[in-house]
Amino acid sequence: MICGRTQDELIDDIRRFHGFVAPGLLIGAFMIDLLYEHISREIEADAIVETGHCLPDAVQTFTPCTIGNGWMKILDLDKFAITLYDRNTFEGYRVWLDPDKAKAHKNVYNWFMGLVPKKDLPRSVLMEAIFAAGKSILSIRKVRVTRHGEREKKGEIRICEQCGEAYAASQGVPCLACQGKGYYQFIV
Amino acid sequence: MICGRTQDELIDDIRRFHGFVAPGLLIGAFMIDLLYEHISREIEADAIVETGHCLPDAVQTFTPCTIGNGWMKILDLDKFAITLYDRNTFEGYRVWLDPDKAKAHKNVYNWFMGLVPKKDLPRSVLMEAIFAAGKSILSIRKVRVTRHGEREKKGEIRICEQCGEAYAASQGVPCLACQGKGYYQFIV
Repeated sequence: MICGRTQDELIDDIRRFHGFVAPGLLIGAFMIDLLYEHISREIEADAIVETGHCLPDAVQTFTPCTIGNGWMKILDLDKFAITLYDRNTFEGYRVWLDPDKAKAHKNVYNWFMGLVPKKDLPRSVLMEAIFAAGKSILSIRKVRVTRHGEREKKGEIRICEQCGEAYAASQGVPCLACQGKGYYQFIV
Repeated sequence: MICGRTQDELIDDIRRFHGFVAPGLLIGAFMIDLLYEHISREIEADAIVETGHCLPDAVQTFTPCTIGNGWMKILDLDKFAITLYDRNTFEGYRVWLDPDKAKAHKNVYNWFMGLVPKKDLPRSVLMEAIFAAGKSILSIRKVRVTRHGEREKKGEIRICEQCGEAYAASQGVPCLACQGKGYYQFIV
C-alpha cells in the first residue's frame, strides 16, 4: 500500500485529479508515504513544495494541504523536494529524490535528469521502474522551517474607482489591473 | 445542479478537497458553472485565478485545471476573479464577484467586503445566502489573454556540487538553497 492505496487506486486518484498519470506524481506519492512514516497524520502539518511542476498535485492528492487552503506553499527553488512540518513547532521532515540513489534505477534516473527523449522511454516502462524503485531513491532529513512558514492574512478590501471591482487595499489606488498590470483585454 | 452536482454533493466535494466548506469555494462553484455556460467543456481551457485564497481550490475541484498540471495559474492581483480561456486562441471569459450586484445580498456582501466579524455571521446563514444569491452576484465578460498564457518548460537539470541534489541549471551555481535562499535548517 502506498498512501493507503493499492497500486491501481493510486493510479486512479492521480489520473482523476491531475488529468493523467505523470511520473512525478507517482514518485510524489512515495515521498508523501515516506514523510508520514516520520510525521503522524494526527499532527497539523503544512507542506512546502520546491517546484511548481507536478509535485504540488501529489501533495494535494495525498495530504490535506492544498494551495487554496493555504496549507501548501510552492517555492521556485526548482528541486524535486517536499517538506512537511508541524505548523506549531516548525519542525518536520524534508524528502527529496536523491540522484545518487536514483542511479541504481537507470530509467528513473534518465527520466529525472532529462537524459532520454520521451519517445525512447515508454510511459509504462518508466512507471514500472518507479514502482520497482519505490522509496529506495529518496532521502529524508529532519528540518526546522526558518522562513515561509507564515500564514498570510487577508487585509482590507476596497472598491476600485475605475473598474468598480473589489481588491486588496494594500495594492494602492487604482487596483493593479487598472494600473496596467492585468493580463487580459475585454473583447466583444 | 451546480457544476453537475446537487447542493449536497457540491458541499461534500468541497469539504473533501479543501478540508472545510469555505464560502469562497461555494461562490467559486457558481463562477465555474457560469464560465462553462460560455465555454464548452470540450475545449482545452486554461485557468487564471486572481487570488491565492480559496478560489484556486474551486478551480481544482470543478475543472481539470490544477496548479501541478500547469493548466491553472495564480496571479497576485488580489481579486475574486477567474478567467477560463481556450489555450489555443487565448480567448475566453473572465468572471468576477461584482460588488454592485452583491449589495442585494447583504450577508454575502458583508462577508465579502470584510464588514462583519466572523462570529456575527454564522457559517450556515452565510452558506444559505450564497445558495440564494447563486450567479446573480457575478459578472462575466469575454476576454483575450494578453500575458501569462505561456506554458513553462522544464529546462536543463544539474547536480549541485555542494548539496548533491538535482536542480534547474538556470539558477546558476550553486543551487538556490546553497546560495542561502533555502527555507530550512537540517536538525537532529
